[in-house]
Amino acid sequence: MRTHTTAACSASFPNEDTLILNSSYQDVTGARTQACFRELRCLRAELEATNPDLPKLSSLPLRIVSENNFPTAAGLASSAAGFAALVRAIANLYELPSSPTDLSRIARQGSGSACRSLFGGYVAWQMGTKPDGSDSVAVEVAPASHWPTMRALILVVSAEKKGVSSTSGMQITVATADLFQRRTEIVVPKHMHEMEEAIKNKDFEAFGRVTMKESNSFHATCLDTFPPIVYLNDVSRAAIRVVEDINRKAGKIIAAYTFDAGPNAVIYYDEENQRAVVGVLKGALGTLDVWPDETQIQPQRAEDMDARALKVLKDGVSRVILTRVGEGPIRTEESLIAENGEPVKK
Amino acid sequence: MRTHTTAACSASFPNEDTLILNSSYQDVTGARTQACFRELRCLRAELEATNPDLPKLSSLPLRIVSENNFPTAAGLASSAAGFAALVRAIANLYELPSSPTDLSRIARQGSGSACRSLFGGYVAWQMGTKPDGSDSVAVEVAPASHWPTMRALILVVSAEKKGVSSTSGMQITVATADLFQRRTEIVVPKHMHEMEEAIKNKDFEAFGRVTMKESNSFHATCLDTFPPIVYLNDVSRAAIRVVEDINRKAGKIIAAYTFDAGPNAVIYYDEENQRAVVGVLKGALGTLDVWPDETQIQPQRAEDMDARALKVLKDGVSRVILTRVGEGPIRTEESLIAENGEPVKK
Repeated sequence: MRTHTTAACSASFPNEDTLILNSSYQDVTGARTQACFRELRCLRAELEATNPDLPKLSSLPLRIVSENNFPTAAGLASSAAGFAALVRAIANLYELPSSPTDLSRIARQGSGSACRSLFGGYVAWQMGTKPDGSDSVAVEVAPASHWPTMRALILVVSAEKKGVSSTSGMQITVATADLFQRRTEIVVPKHMHEMEEAIKNKDFEAFGRVTMKESNSFHATCLDTFPPIVYLNDVSRAAIRVVEDINRKAGKIIAAYTFDAGPNAVIYYDEENQRAVVGVLKGALGTLDVWPDETQIQPQRAEDMDARALKVLKDGVSRVILTRVGEGPIRTEESLIAENGEPVKK
Repeated sequence: MRTHTTAACSASFPNEDTLILNSSYQDVTGARTQACFRELRCLRAELEATNPDLPKLSSLPLRIVSENNFPTAAGLASSAAGFAALVRAIANLYELPSSPTDLSRIARQGSGSACRSLFGGYVAWQMGTKPDGSDSVAVEVAPASHWPTMRALILVVSAEKKGVSSTSGMQITVATADLFQRRTEIVVPKHMHEMEEAIKNKDFEAFGRVTMKESNSFHATCLDTFPPIVYLNDVSRAAIRVVEDINRKAGKIIAAYTFDAGPNAVIYYDEENQRAVVGVLKGALGTLDVWPDETQIQPQRAEDMDARALKVLKDGVSRVILTRVGEGPIRTEESLIAENGEPVKK
């Protein structure tokens, strides 16, 4: 899954910042986007103040062009990827010497979870203890190369946009969910610790168990919000059931579901269990045109699986994405903005 | 909603206890049913021991015939009603002098929430503090006559039997849900207090708010169970949305959803808001054959309502039940067992 972002600035641009996401102009006047622009400009202005030879980029209008190869605002962390890529792209344009941790603090103001996406591999977002949140930063738990066989299969249930954004949803949860305090004080720290240990030990069963429990706990506090936030739907429930059946058949946890702020199921597995996870899902979902072209994995017969759950899944999944743990932001010479300043036509 | 139960015993019956529910023989060898039979027989045997003139009913096989006029094991408290009626019927047969509280303790061993159903009106099941649970009993908060305008409309989403019984579901929740402790220590006592106050004050808004929050909190801990228990489905979510729309339109809480261990929505309202609640639902669900015959309420146009939620509801609701707060177990001369000991043919 990729967000590709190009940032440019020029005196020849109309005198306002613009952001074009998947060919559509976005509102950049919101506080979250403005905070990112302001902080990055401020860092550039400091550089320019200490070195008068540098071009005065900080005062020029910005143009950002960004493209996702996955559904936006559908609970697949498109905001996190988007803000991380935006911040990284502008930082590169401005030639800022900032560390990923510094940029992570800026990106977090765009979308909380964007702080993680400045890093590659396995990343933890630490809660921190300071009231101003300044120590709530992302740190690398392990590089992607530490556990290179980790895979994720995403069942895209619906690409429709969310009724409530993750960030504002979270704020209502904090304010109204009676169970939330217990989650932050006890459950999340426990899961964070268990998850870091599981990754260090490359222990898929422990990883899978805490992945599923953490997802359920998160959605429980969403449901405990008032009015309730219900991201999971019948197709999500069917995905949970099918993963449970796959694990029961294997006699251990070889697949783990997790749901972000939407109904789409992310199913983690180790490459060694590709047949038993991806093959079975391919068999179950049939030869529908939802699989990526390059999938060479043979469909397996789905035996001893809940027939009703399989039918709900078959009817409800619109696309399957196969992905893996990435390396974080990387530079590319492929620009989405042409020499004349216009977005590149594809 | 009614459970009608007749208990009989006779030396002419085959030498084993039998229970016929809705014309179908039930397994009575389970620990829960056995505990109820044993305790009631024991009380009868004590009476017989002190008064040798009494017929020795305690040693005779029992025959119980029971009928619900609502779906069984679908999350509509059929176990609670069933065990309460069973215990009350046998207690009447045995002419036990036991109080409703005494019988409540026995019924609780059949199904926890059955302890409430031995009483009429508004009933609280107190948590109690003793390790053996002996002070976890039901008490009357107010008689039905205190707030006689309370109504409930039930959207029966599915009459299919549950995959997991409420009692065993609850045991898994207690064992595995990380958020459960917070719920029992903080949330439930708070809700119990707020609910008792709301009933005493006949304050529908307060009643409605705590009803909805308590339902959400319960289902949150179900979802936090591992593996998760998800009773709510897409039709349940649509019912939540429609109730939210009705309340938004009214500018205050005039309808309150709650879900027991199943997808069926119970929607409370005060009779004075019948048009705005039942009328709108009748308008929304159309002239489908799901309404009880006697409903004289005029359908209202459903304006400013979420069209998708209405469609999901229309497609997913199989039956509507209109009911009110009842008076608890009452005696009836109508027997479900004929003179010859056979179930009455209907």
